[in-house]
This record gives sequence, structure tokens and C-alpha cells, in this order.
Amino acid sequence: MTVAPIAGAAGPGGSSETGSSETGSSETRSSVTESSVTRSSVTGGSETVSFGDRLAERVASRESQVVLGLDPDPARLWPDALDRADAPVERAPLAGDASPAARAARAVAAHCALVIEATAEQCVAVKPQVACFERLGAPGWGALADTVAVARRHGLLVIADAKRGDIGVTAASYAQAFLGETPTPYGPVQGLGADAMTVNPLLGRDSLEPFVTTARAHGRGLFVLVRTSNPGAADIQERELMNGGAVSDRLADLVAEIGGAGAGAAGLSDIGAVVGATAPGRLAALREHMPRAVFLLPGVGAQGGRVEELAAAFAPGRAGGLVCASRGIVAAYEHAGGDPATAAAREASRLRELAWRLSA
Amino acid sequence: MTVAPIAGAAGPGGSSETGSSETGSSETRSSVTESSVTRSSVTGGSETVSFGDRLAERVASRESQVVLGLDPDPARLWPDALDRADAPVERAPLAGDASPAARAARAVAAHCALVIEATAEQCVAVKPQVACFERLGAPGWGALADTVAVARRHGLLVIADAKRGDIGVTAASYAQAFLGETPTPYGPVQGLGADAMTVNPLLGRDSLEPFVTTARAHGRGLFVLVRTSNPGAADIQERELMNGGAVSDRLADLVAEIGGAGAGAAGLSDIGAVVGATAPGRLAALREHMPRAVFLLPGVGAQGGRVEELAAAFAPGRAGGLVCASRGIVAAYEHAGGDPATAAAREASRLRELAWRLSA
Repeated sequence: MTVAPIAGAAGPGGSSETGSSETGSSETRSSVTESSVTRSSVTGGSETVSFGDRLAERVASRESQVVLGLDPDPARLWPDALDRADAPVERAPLAGDASPAARAARAVAAHCALVIEATAEQCVAVKPQVACFERLGAPGWGALADTVAVARRHGLLVIADAKRGDIGVTAASYAQAFLGETPTPYGPVQGLGADAMTVNPLLGRDSLEPFVTTARAHGRGLFVLVRTSNPGAADIQERELMNGGAVSDRLADLVAEIGGAGAGAAGLSDIGAVVGATAPGRLAALREHMPRAVFLLPGVGAQGGRVEELAAAFAPGRAGGLVCASRGIVAAYEHAGGDPATAAAREASRLRELAWRLSA
Repeated sequence: MTVAPIAGAAGPGGSSETGSSETGSSETRSSVTESSVTRSSVTGGSETVSFGDRLAERVASRESQVVLGLDPDPARLWPDALDRADAPVERAPLAGDASPAARAARAVAAHCALVIEATAEQCVAVKPQVACFERLGAPGWGALADTVAVARRHGLLVIADAKRGDIGVTAASYAQAFLGETPTPYGPVQGLGADAMTVNPLLGRDSLEPFVTTARAHGRGLFVLVRTSNPGAADIQERELMNGGAVSDRLADLVAEIGGAGAGAAGLSDIGAVVGATAPGRLAALREHMPRAVFLLPGVGAQGGRVEELAAAFAPGRAGGLVCASRGIVAAYEHAGGDPATAAAREASRLRELAWRLSA
């Protein structure tokens, strides 16, 4: 078992694999080491593979719909990670930095690497919670970039849980930060290189368009907040509208509209939806509004959602639903006892088998 | 004129002035060098000054309601900033980093410092657009931290335009990142140290509460998205609800509710609202829902909003409205010609006088 060195301030992402290509779909479970988004066409050129197709292929090859949520709390890391926080690092920028932020960022990166190593075989993607890295400042962004790199090496897709949303020109900047690149007089700056990100649609259709444009150009995907897993979802998202339906129904229609042009050969759109696993009744209704959207399903486990109630998510196929679990996996040892890695792998395996059976 | 060195990956913020104190309200215009949030009480202890009071005092002493928006595009920086991108830097981490991200981040920090120096006397606060820094990765976060420090040295408040919103535990992490600090086994990690931040309320009341708690504990403020300045505001925010009013009216009620406990002596709450200057009719209606909220008013200038139409914002007093302008100030020289700094100062001055007269 190896732990990736922490990049620290070595710049964002580094996962600029947009230009790489694969010559076929011969990926086999756990053997994928890169997240290629183009494939050679018969004419020798390359075309961008849609996120929906890429996801469907990955779900099939890994036989998993489990998304490992990474919400690292520096005060609750796996014990082994703490031991590695002050280990020598390869890259220079943070090597000599003994600030609390740099040490915590190294520990967070080590923790995420350990969790990924323990559970990668059971998962199809990781979902780093950007807030948990951002609170460590610049070193935290370095830890996020390193975590993305470790996930890639384990053949996992990366869904940045950022919940960004802003007016057009700013939305374009966020899209550059997570899915694209930023042109500068010094050359392009690669973004985080995530395969997909979560976005907040409160600012309306024109606020989503720059995300869609950037995502589609790079074969990446979006997950638009439609019906979240928390009790507060009732306050705004579930308000009834004068012309019928709730706010979340209109959000679902918006997702279906902007996703229409992005459906791949597998029938899944590149614009998915965040639909909490805590309200299975709403999930079935929202599936009718969004027949081709991939549902990202948070709220399983600690928040009370049960995999067994998520069948409607899988209506468009095995990759139609992605089951997110973070604390349920990462903190499994707190309830189950024993080694954190073993308990995490066992819980991830349990979720994988449940979801796989349900979606058959 | 001096330009601040760029911190690069030297850790977040550094503006941990929460513990400082001031012995009175003798601040005079342009002479404030720190953003103190506590003052000595007669008993020798200290009490947190509410954000509303702090803002009212600052608006009065600086005679300005102008908020300088900083949305730096590395491809459109002031020419002088480009010259400084490769100047020697004081702090070590990025000194030898010639990556495009590090060079662009140094140029962005130099640009923001130049813009602040040129216009600070006309302004009460800066509003850095986090997306524009985030797209440069870890070095970009360093540039953001440096920009906050420069603004402080010029006596300006800092409003982080982050538009974050997430479920409770994650919202708490974002609050730590921008307004508070994060406990770690290596000691607390200071956040960015902003005086206020913008937040997105789509996830409902429970998603705002951690922001409120952290902000109030530190004498900081929030600006909740209620009615944004873009055309897409019509898609969700202005949808009519079955029980009357639009979504934005309910958001306004939510702001008034959570802000009720945070009103200071000046009558202004610590929970404000983002209300676009592009819909002055809505602004007046929303003021009735939120009598004590400070309105952060984007959309003046490039987006078509006019200061003359914003009178309703100032109903609770001079500090009841904050007029945001970014491109209108920073890119003024592109229309007016001449030196960027002179054109920016002139436009900021014009906006300041307009708003000050309107709020008399």
C-alpha cells in the first residue's frame, strides 16, 4: 500500500487527460488507471465520449454504482493518516511548511488516499466535498488535487461536490476551475480535472449554460441540485407553485431540457441530478421528469436513506443511479470495530451488492 | 504605491484579527488599517460588535457605500500587473514556482492590489469573486488571501462572493473556510477572514444555520441570495407560489427570520440580502419583507442597473444598501481612455457621490 505525496501548492489538478485517447472499451474492473474522455475513431481522429457513455462503461466494468464521499474532518481522520502527516514529501512547495494548514492538509490527503485504497475496488467514483478541503486554504486545494490524482490511479471517476452556481461570467470561471482550463498570458492553467461536478440552479438557466458548455466540450458531466437530502429541502425546493408542481419539479424540467442534447449512445444524459435518497417517493416522481438523467443519490446511511428504496433511480439502466456514502463507509469502524480499512471495505462492498442487485 | 508580495501557498487568510480590540469608534475616513470586530467594554472584557454596527460605522466614516468587485481575468489584467507577475516575492513557497498557475496568480494578486490602491478611498469594501481565484488552484487561493490582506491595509471590509450553500455539516465547513477557523490536531487553521460572504439558500433554512452561527460568533455577516441580477432570476426566483408571492419573497422572509436576532444598535441585521440592481421594482417590494437587512446590490453598470433607482435599498439608513461595481470601475479606462488607475478612481468616485446623495 502506497500513499501519494501531497502536492501542496504545486498547482491545481494536473489531471489534464483531455487529450489522451483509448483505443477501445476493453476496460476491465479495477484495471483502469486513467480517466480517458476521447477514443480514436475509425478515421483516425478522435471524438469526445459523452459523460453518460463514459459513466455507463465504467459502471459496467467495475460492477458498482457506489460513490465514495470524501468529507475529511481533520479532527476525525483515520489514525494511520495522522502518522503520515509529517512524512517527507516528494514535491517541494510544502516540504518545509510546518504550519497547521499544511500539516492538516497533508494528513487529509493521506487519509483520503488510505480510504480510496481500502475501498476503490467496490466503487465507481469518489465525491470529494470541496468545502472540507477549502477550509484548509491553499494547502487544502493541494490536498484536493492530490486526492483527485489518487482516485484516478485507482480507476475511479471524480465528482467534485462543489454546489457552485453564479451568473454567467462567474459560472464560466467555476467551470474552468473544476472541469476545464483557464487561458492566461503564461499559458493555460488546468483546472481540477474532475469528471463531473455538482451545481446549484437557483440562479436559473443562464447560470447553468456555461457549466454545460464547458462540461460538454470536455466530455464531463454535471449534477444539478434538484431535491436535496436534508430536511430544509422542504423550505424552498418543495414549495408548491401556482401553475402546479413544486420548485423541484421545475428544476427537474430544467435538467431534462438542458440535458436533452447531451444524451450518449447508452441513453444517459451528461446532465444529471442530485436527488436525495431520503425521499424515495419524490425520487420516483422526479424520474418521470428526467428519464435520461443520472441520479446522484446522497443521504444513504447516516442521513437515513436506504438503498432498497432507490429502484426508480435505475429505470434508465444500471448507471442511472449513483449511491453516495461517505461517513457510512469511512466511519464504519466506529460502529463495527476493528481496522478502519477493513470495516470501510466491508461496508462499501455491502452497498455495492445491494445496489447492483436492485438495478438488475 | 507599493504592491503586496504574494503569499502563494503560505496558508489561508492570516486575517485572524478576531481577538483584537479597539477602544472606541474614533475611526476616521481612510485611516482604518484593521478590521476589528471587538471593542473594550467598560468592565475590561470585550464584546463582539455586530456586523451591522460595524458596517454602519465604516460607511459613515468612509462616506461610501461602494463595494469594489474584484473579478480578475488573467487575460484582462491591468498592464502594470503583468509587469509585476515575475517580480521577486518575499515569502518562500511560490518564489521559485514558474508554473502558469503561480505566475498567473502573482499577476492576479498584483492587479487586485493596484485596483484597490487606486480606488480604496472611494470604497467601503471589496468583493472578491472567489471563482476567479479558485480557477488558479492553490496559488489562486494564495492570491485571494493576499488580496484580503491588501484590502484590510486600506481599511476596507471584505465580502467574499462565494455563493456557497450545502447541507448542515458541509455548510459549517464553508463557514469555517471563509468566516471562522477549523480545529485540527495541529492547531486551529484560520479561514480567509472575510467580514461577510454570500450564500445560496436553495437548500433551506437548516443549510443557512451553520453560516449564521459562525458569522454571529465572529461578528461577521452574510448576504443571502434573494433576487439576483441576471435574466435567469426569472426561472426559479420569480416563480409564483401557490400560497402567494414568488420564491424570492419567501427567501426574503427567511432572511428576515434568521436575521431577527442579529440586529445591532444601528438597526441593521447581520444577515443581509443580495438583490440585483437590475430590477428596481422588485427591490422596493423585497425591502418591505426585509426592513433591517443590508442589501448587496450587484448589477450596476455593465449589467444595466442604475444607482438612481436604488433609493428603497437605503430605507433603513445609509448603510442599508451597498452598491457593487466591478467591471464598471476596473475596466473604466477601456471606455474613458487614459491611465487605468485614474479612470477607475474617477468612476468609483462618481458612484460614491451618486449613492451618497441618494441615501441622504
